[in-house]
Amino acid sequence: MLNFTYMVSTRIFFGRNSIEHLGEEIKQYGNRILFVSGKGSIRKTGLYETVINIFMKNNLVYYELSGVQPNPRISHVREGVKLCREHDIECIVAVGGGSVIDSAKAIATGYYHDGDPWDLFLLGDSSVKKALPIGTVLTFAGTGSEMNGNAVISNEATEEKLAIHKDILRPRFSILDPTYTFSVPRNQTAAGTVDIFSHILEQYFSPTKDAFVQDRMAESLLKTCIQYGPVVLAEPTEYEARAQLMWTSSIALNGLLGYGRVGDWATHGMEHALSAVYDVTHGVGLAILTPYWMEHVLTAETREKFVEYARNVWQIDGKNELTVAKQGIVKTREFFTSLGMPQTLGDIGVKQNDLEKMAEKTVSHGDVGKFKKLGKNDVLTILKNAF
Amino acid sequence: MLNFTYMVSTRIFFGRNSIEHLGEEIKQYGNRILFVSGKGSIRKTGLYETVINIFMKNNLVYYELSGVQPNPRISHVREGVKLCREHDIECIVAVGGGSVIDSAKAIATGYYHDGDPWDLFLLGDSSVKKALPIGTVLTFAGTGSEMNGNAVISNEATEEKLAIHKDILRPRFSILDPTYTFSVPRNQTAAGTVDIFSHILEQYFSPTKDAFVQDRMAESLLKTCIQYGPVVLAEPTEYEARAQLMWTSSIALNGLLGYGRVGDWATHGMEHALSAVYDVTHGVGLAILTPYWMEHVLTAETREKFVEYARNVWQIDGKNELTVAKQGIVKTREFFTSLGMPQTLGDIGVKQNDLEKMAEKTVSHGDVGKFKKLGKNDVLTILKNAF
Repeated sequence: MLNFTYMVSTRIFFGRNSIEHLGEEIKQYGNRILFVSGKGSIRKTGLYETVINIFMKNNLVYYELSGVQPNPRISHVREGVKLCREHDIECIVAVGGGSVIDSAKAIATGYYHDGDPWDLFLLGDSSVKKALPIGTVLTFAGTGSEMNGNAVISNEATEEKLAIHKDILRPRFSILDPTYTFSVPRNQTAAGTVDIFSHILEQYFSPTKDAFVQDRMAESLLKTCIQYGPVVLAEPTEYEARAQLMWTSSIALNGLLGYGRVGDWATHGMEHALSAVYDVTHGVGLAILTPYWMEHVLTAETREKFVEYARNVWQIDGKNELTVAKQGIVKTREFFTSLGMPQTLGDIGVKQNDLEKMAEKTVSHGDVGKFKKLGKNDVLTILKNAF
Repeated sequence: MLNFTYMVSTRIFFGRNSIEHLGEEIKQYGNRILFVSGKGSIRKTGLYETVINIFMKNNLVYYELSGVQPNPRISHVREGVKLCREHDIECIVAVGGGSVIDSAKAIATGYYHDGDPWDLFLLGDSSVKKALPIGTVLTFAGTGSEMNGNAVISNEATEEKLAIHKDILRPRFSILDPTYTFSVPRNQTAAGTVDIFSHILEQYFSPTKDAFVQDRMAESLLKTCIQYGPVVLAEPTEYEARAQLMWTSSIALNGLLGYGRVGDWATHGMEHALSAVYDVTHGVGLAILTPYWMEHVLTAETREKFVEYARNVWQIDGKNELTVAKQGIVKTREFFTSLGMPQTLGDIGVKQNDLEKMAEKTVSHGDVGKFKKLGKNDVLTILKNAF
């Protein structure tokens, strides 16, 4: 196990009606709120009104920034920073999924940065020094943004999608009511489950050999996705299944699985390059790329980890290790397909002559992957195989 | 899953040399320190001197309360409260195992209580309103006190052992360097592993049916104890094994496994009655009582959970559910025995005519156990079986 500093400071209010904590929590941080939300689904479900009523009842002054899109844009973040400065915002409340929360984080730290907020993404984590407090009301299980300090933002002008990670970006509190995910459409629900699954894999496939408890916990969460992923598609309003996935999503990327070891994250790197160019749903990109990544990095050297994965997660028996390892990959692809995910980049309209550009983008800041280091040629091979 | 509020606010510095964070962390809370420690093992290992040097280097004013015993006493807590008041203490630093940390917690909240600190244990959790900040340097893996808000204190005058639980008692930070546990004696190391194992079981055997992800995580931690418990006995200075158990110990009782469901805790109730009377090592008491508790509560109604436990944790195959369930109990007892634990209360010198008193003590605040409710007669039967 590597040395680590554990800090998971977000207070979670989990369960039906946990929104009742919203007012009292916000007031710990101030009375002047920026209310960030997405493209309107919360108006349809009534959550918008619920939140506004809580603001009013608690005499909070709020300003709105709605319309955050999937693969959230830096241009929108700039608007948010402007609003915060104009109105002396004290706390940002993000109501939505990962895109909304990531935007809130970028705004929260952009507020304290003199230049353009995109600078922080170019300069990287060490440039993030201060942030406004953030609270969230989660409506989507997948990104884990509600309990971590990560934000991923796209720059539509430069076709870049970059991330920052810093503990001060962790929401101070998050309201996790599984009923808010009942109305998430089928394809988005499935993509969210893949996203959770991928976050776990990126930490599980690690170059750090000694991570027994982390590995076993990772397998626990993978099994939860396998158990409940199909249930939420069949029964979108099944509370327990939604609850299990929502909580698993938060734990999967709050640090618990990653502390004490190095993660891989090459697949996320490739997917960010893909969705920067094509505006693909993140989980869909991951569902396509993950099995091809696995096939590419499975070698005699890495086989043991794939065998562990196949045996412990998919209960695959057998003595021939290579066969067992490969069967684990087959099972992974089958699982994603069973959730309705496409299998190739061609299926989602990617053009073959964009693959080179995406490979270049993936390695634009250097090689990717820690479990197995990938240069541009490796990435291009994976993308071609996935086409 | 039941509704819950997640709050695991303790910052953990994990790994070799993580003591280097001690000075900077303490200074966030003040300059006037109460340094709480045990019966002198930290003087032998040199940790005492390391800590004192850090205090000096950081110009911290410190007062000492050493000599905390296993099954820590309220009389000692009273001394600590007095010292804090006399010297305007701003932060308590506990260097040791669970007893030292629990004492620090009782002192931290006793400081703000006008009457006798034992009142808080009699009145219960709701009476705990405020506490001085606590930091810890952990030297023993087992209790989990370094990352939770629990404190268990014994009253030697009344032969009572009572607990309080409150988030404000969570240490602000804890230094977890596995090398500090290298010198823990064999029997204490084994008792610590049993304590971890028992904490997990108390949450695993739950009346809450829907706790899939919590159950799988619990099994992960149980497997880690089974994997590394024997290793640390065979190789006390094996870093990775000590690290795995140390971190597992913290996670096992920081809330993660318990959030969203109800735990049982009857075995802990019985053990507290036992060790209030006999000053037995907590883990030793648990090792004896747990399998007898299991045998007593295994019925047609509870069988399913025992089968799940036997299959998932001990990989026991077989179609006859009762046989599988019983085999899980056999394995549990064998595991404890393999760690050198005694099997009966007679083995540790308990007198048969004290069993009645212990049963009464166990249920003195009402029935115990949530997975299976136990009245005085149940408890007495278990104690007699365990004799």
